[in-house]
Amino acid sequence: MKEKIKLGYIGLGKRGMSVLKNCFSQMQDVEVKYVCDLDEKKLEEAKTLCKENAAIEPILTKDYHDILNDAEIDAVAIMTDWTNRPEMATEAMRAKKYVAIEVGCADTIEECYMLLDVHKETGSQLMMLENCNYGRREMAVLNMVKQGLFGEIVHCTGGYRHYLTKTDLFIETPDGKEIPSYRIKHYSEENRENYPTHAFGPISKVLSINRGNRIVSLLSVSSKARGLKHTTKKLFGEDSVWHKLDYKQGDIVNTILSCADGATVLLTLDTTAIRSYYSRDFSVRGTTAFSDEVARVIFVEGMEGEKVRDNEEEMLEKYDHPLWKEYKALGKKAGHGGMDWLVCRAFIESAKAEIPTPIDIYDTLTWMAIGPLSEQSILSGGAPVEFPDFTEGAWENREPAVECKYGLETIFEDKNIKI
Amino acid sequence: MKEKIKLGYIGLGKRGMSVLKNCFSQMQDVEVKYVCDLDEKKLEEAKTLCKENAAIEPILTKDYHDILNDAEIDAVAIMTDWTNRPEMATEAMRAKKYVAIEVGCADTIEECYMLLDVHKETGSQLMMLENCNYGRREMAVLNMVKQGLFGEIVHCTGGYRHYLTKTDLFIETPDGKEIPSYRIKHYSEENRENYPTHAFGPISKVLSINRGNRIVSLLSVSSKARGLKHTTKKLFGEDSVWHKLDYKQGDIVNTILSCADGATVLLTLDTTAIRSYYSRDFSVRGTTAFSDEVARVIFVEGMEGEKVRDNEEEMLEKYDHPLWKEYKALGKKAGHGGMDWLVCRAFIESAKAEIPTPIDIYDTLTWMAIGPLSEQSILSGGAPVEFPDFTEGAWENREPAVECKYGLETIFEDKNIKI
Repeated sequence: MKEKIKLGYIGLGKRGMSVLKNCFSQMQDVEVKYVCDLDEKKLEEAKTLCKENAAIEPILTKDYHDILNDAEIDAVAIMTDWTNRPEMATEAMRAKKYVAIEVGCADTIEECYMLLDVHKETGSQLMMLENCNYGRREMAVLNMVKQGLFGEIVHCTGGYRHYLTKTDLFIETPDGKEIPSYRIKHYSEENRENYPTHAFGPISKVLSINRGNRIVSLLSVSSKARGLKHTTKKLFGEDSVWHKLDYKQGDIVNTILSCADGATVLLTLDTTAIRSYYSRDFSVRGTTAFSDEVARVIFVEGMEGEKVRDNEEEMLEKYDHPLWKEYKALGKKAGHGGMDWLVCRAFIESAKAEIPTPIDIYDTLTWMAIGPLSEQSILSGGAPVEFPDFTEGAWENREPAVECKYGLETIFEDKNIKI
Repeated sequence: MKEKIKLGYIGLGKRGMSVLKNCFSQMQDVEVKYVCDLDEKKLEEAKTLCKENAAIEPILTKDYHDILNDAEIDAVAIMTDWTNRPEMATEAMRAKKYVAIEVGCADTIEECYMLLDVHKETGSQLMMLENCNYGRREMAVLNMVKQGLFGEIVHCTGGYRHYLTKTDLFIETPDGKEIPSYRIKHYSEENRENYPTHAFGPISKVLSINRGNRIVSLLSVSSKARGLKHTTKKLFGEDSVWHKLDYKQGDIVNTILSCADGATVLLTLDTTAIRSYYSRDFSVRGTTAFSDEVARVIFVEGMEGEKVRDNEEEMLEKYDHPLWKEYKALGKKAGHGGMDWLVCRAFIESAKAEIPTPIDIYDTLTWMAIGPLSEQSILSGGAPVEFPDFTEGAWENREPAVECKYGLETIFEDKNIKI
């Protein structure tokens, strides 16, 4: 068991900076040895916060190879935008690092196989930092599923229902200009389920994907694309270059996955048509219980009351996941209600113990594959496409991941945690 | 304009009896001249309620041909179970009656074409009595859509989320035995979207289907079937014949329709996996507004407030459909919150005026076709199937149906309405 993890941290955008600030830089058993970005101001900002949080001054670099070439580095977190991540991850795995990768999809299925090949060669770990797997609701429902309260699961839903506003789509420069975020490029070039992992990560665990079950096929259907034309007209006017762009990304993309055990999953991407609240649309349907995020209900057969709804809060109190309880008992909070902290801890604990990460490479590749496969299905009018089995047959007999193995208390104790 | 409609009424099951009691038998401009069923006790029951409500004694018959052969009969309502309806409707149209048909699907696409052929031959009207098209929420949203408040519609959802319990699945005989309802037969023989019209009827109007728009393709994916095995075990034990039946109907069936204008529709059948409340999952997504039944929200661009939810009641007050307002102003109620009354009135008004029904044969056939097409798609692993155009090209230029043409006040005035 390693006492401390030396971490190289790549990518200091909005998300990268937030996770560095609220999570990794605050962990006493983590030394952020490098931060890497192309933007010097961001490097300076990261240095300042590392000094404040951990009294460590990281090495600043614009070249991530500096990190990979340092034999002292145990782990690398790749927090860049959607492009280039697989390439960086491949190199990092080859350099025998523990690799964490921010949520997102592969551009192509070939990228998934490239990562798989390196894993087979090197045995290196790759973990998607899917924070929503550590969301309170998702963990409580998983806890109930593992206790058998849902009976046999027949269907799940999940969605990324997040209306993207100006600040999600454009970055304002100091001189008041709008620079498009990476999303604009993707939304104008592709039409696909481009953000499935917040929804599917937790469902994947509920359905024991790659550990007794697997996805056998996928299909996606997209609505027309009108939202971004409307939004950019409102924001910048009809003559703006952003309004004139040809957005390909459909406003609503529904994707259906069929599993080896006969369960199905509905995923919805919903980011450009106007809506008033965020939702991950998480619902789980079993023979003996039913949960639904939107209706805020968790209902178990035999419960009293007709037309039960809006009872989620009391059910969460009752069925909170042990890891969440432990976390809550410590009175700590971190980004996104604690789940950022928990997913980063899971990565670090695995790296310290030198064991596979609880979200492992098979999970990561399965989730990343949804993007390119959905694009393929949409292009062929919703035709189902076969889902690759990255485990190469091993899924049938792989043991469940031990999610709660790592107590958090040891981490929090004696630490000057500010969050 | 006819002053009175002479009606032949076929089918006195739970639904048939309810609509007769609460709607047709209470209308002063309707004479229920015949009631038809195979069950003598039900015929007597229907006679009694007609006498009580309208001081009319209908002719009782077990043979619906008696109705069709009576030249005095203007209109026929077919309220039998899912089977045989198309055959009866065909004969009734051939006999030049106005034909109303209870909600449900065709068994096969051929049935739809059989009905279309008779319509082309005779010009007779066929109207599905889709009460949910006259639901308050659905009408208010349609009203807003017609006023342009939703901008361009990109996506809709609808579902039949109704957990079928013992009384929906079995009929108890006077000697305490359980007789399976027609549903058991269908659920053990078929796997399809078997009840789409409550959801799709209103959506069809929102999307102007068959009047400027049409469905071009459909696909359906079904989950495994576990619910009825579980329910029947709980109700009757493992050794019962009902538990031993091989139920084919998947617990959750998701169906996606793609429209000529690029909008998409998601329909969900959800009747056998345990759940705690009924929902039709009605949601409409436009470029400038958003409604969602489950979150009880109707949000229009520019509205104040972050994360708006649970504001549906106040929005309905503001945007209630004129027909609903008129109905409400009269202080009347009928089955299912008034919508049964309204759909029956729409049928009668059309028959009196001898004009096409607002839900016309093209709507009816389109909605009925979803069942067999979804079955075909499920059998081929979710492959999209082409959707037939029953209008034979006319959809592009057909005018919108005039839904509010018929004032209700004339109907209610001077009437001794009990409901």
